[in-house]
Amino acid sequence: MKLVCIGSGNVATHMAQAFKSAGHEILQVWSRHIDHADVLAKKVSSSPIADLEAVDVYADLYLISVKDDAIFDIAAKLKNVKGLVVHTSGSTDISIVNVCLRYGVLYPLQTFSLAKALDFSQVPLCIEAGNAVELKLLKNVARELSANVYEVNSEQRRSLHLAAVFASNFSNHLYHLSHLILKDQGLDFGMLKPLIMETAEKVQQAMPLSVQTGPAVRQDEQTIQKHTAMLQGKPQLSEIYKILSDSIKKTHS
Amino acid sequence: MKLVCIGSGNVATHMAQAFKSAGHEILQVWSRHIDHADVLAKKVSSSPIADLEAVDVYADLYLISVKDDAIFDIAAKLKNVKGLVVHTSGSTDISIVNVCLRYGVLYPLQTFSLAKALDFSQVPLCIEAGNAVELKLLKNVARELSANVYEVNSEQRRSLHLAAVFASNFSNHLYHLSHLILKDQGLDFGMLKPLIMETAEKVQQAMPLSVQTGPAVRQDEQTIQKHTAMLQGKPQLSEIYKILSDSIKKTHS
Repeated sequence: MKLVCIGSGNVATHMAQAFKSAGHEILQVWSRHIDHADVLAKKVSSSPIADLEAVDVYADLYLISVKDDAIFDIAAKLKNVKGLVVHTSGSTDISIVNVCLRYGVLYPLQTFSLAKALDFSQVPLCIEAGNAVELKLLKNVARELSANVYEVNSEQRRSLHLAAVFASNFSNHLYHLSHLILKDQGLDFGMLKPLIMETAEKVQQAMPLSVQTGPAVRQDEQTIQKHTAMLQGKPQLSEIYKILSDSIKKTHS
Repeated sequence: MKLVCIGSGNVATHMAQAFKSAGHEILQVWSRHIDHADVLAKKVSSSPIADLEAVDVYADLYLISVKDDAIFDIAAKLKNVKGLVVHTSGSTDISIVNVCLRYGVLYPLQTFSLAKALDFSQVPLCIEAGNAVELKLLKNVARELSANVYEVNSEQRRSLHLAAVFASNFSNHLYHLSHLILKDQGLDFGMLKPLIMETAEKVQQAMPLSVQTGPAVRQDEQTIQKHTAMLQGKPQLSEIYKILSDSIKKTHS
């Protein structure tokens, strides 16, 4: 297939590379900033463009991977292309691209960083399309990229994105807060790395509810009080400690 | 070395097994409930006891791995033994065992579940002792069990334990909350597993601050408002969403 990649951020980069690795051709990479487009275009042997008028109208697939609030205007510009137009956003309804002739969604449920490679073949890909024909096409394409392809509707996808914020964005912030606590004592963040890995590995086999550990689930008020005292004068940490401990207690009571 | 293991919970079990694997002999396993003692004793070819008066006074090491508020009474009962008496608690000062002749702390910075085996050789072991002689002994023993041995004082250990609550106990609870969000939409928790692993793997190489993703760090108010609307009527989730999003925004502003 011949693709045009609209966007050059973390998601666009990982997806364009996955398409390229699967043997597809990336005709063009568009970004508002030509130098951004150029960086990704070089990685996938493509041509950088910064003008949407310059988009090749004979591509098979148009991948819109930009900020949510920019999707609509881009889709409107692609309304006459014959190829399939898909966006990659978790929290955006499929209807935002229904101005196009053929449309769908290809949402990767993963956290991407430019600095870190990852095994794309395990990334859950959530697909949705305007009709059964496009859905079949999208499913076949998605299966070339990953072993984990799911059909989900827009409402489900929105929930997946929200769940991902809890499971990933918020967890990463907690890692950062734990780093701050260690720094105060001159301790290295590296000491926590095996614990962080093990916590994630545990829920690959068991439900998180069944492997909850720590003072809150034990209703160990003595330790909770010690921790609360240690966090005095740190309102941000104190508040988070209290709310999450209360939530664990409530969940397990 | 000949050990007595006081306690039979998650930590006691994983530590006793690690000592056993390193070639040490577990003379006895004590628990208030003889059937609990018996379960662990069988695993490490030891003798179960439920009476502290029956503790062998000629062991080299006494490992106290019980609830924090039970440590003092047990240490008091062991005050005349010649062996080294150590507790395994993160948030308990070393002074709680200084009633004994030779004393220290051996704190494993890890989350243990009976149901899941793990590679003990990577568990960070934090040691502290009453004097330099015992510290050297404890360090040598700890190094037989794990490649990651750290000397930390009681104040630092308390901070490590608090940081571990944020990084592990709270993250696991967030995994559970994300499971609840998916369940509402008939979606499987398994879809989030690659994301959870990748989030943990990222911070093995980079600092969490530098790999934060999601709507809050992008100051993406449109998505935050969508999420907030989705969580209406769910006060527990709403409150956690707001406080953690605000904390991320504050951290990155």
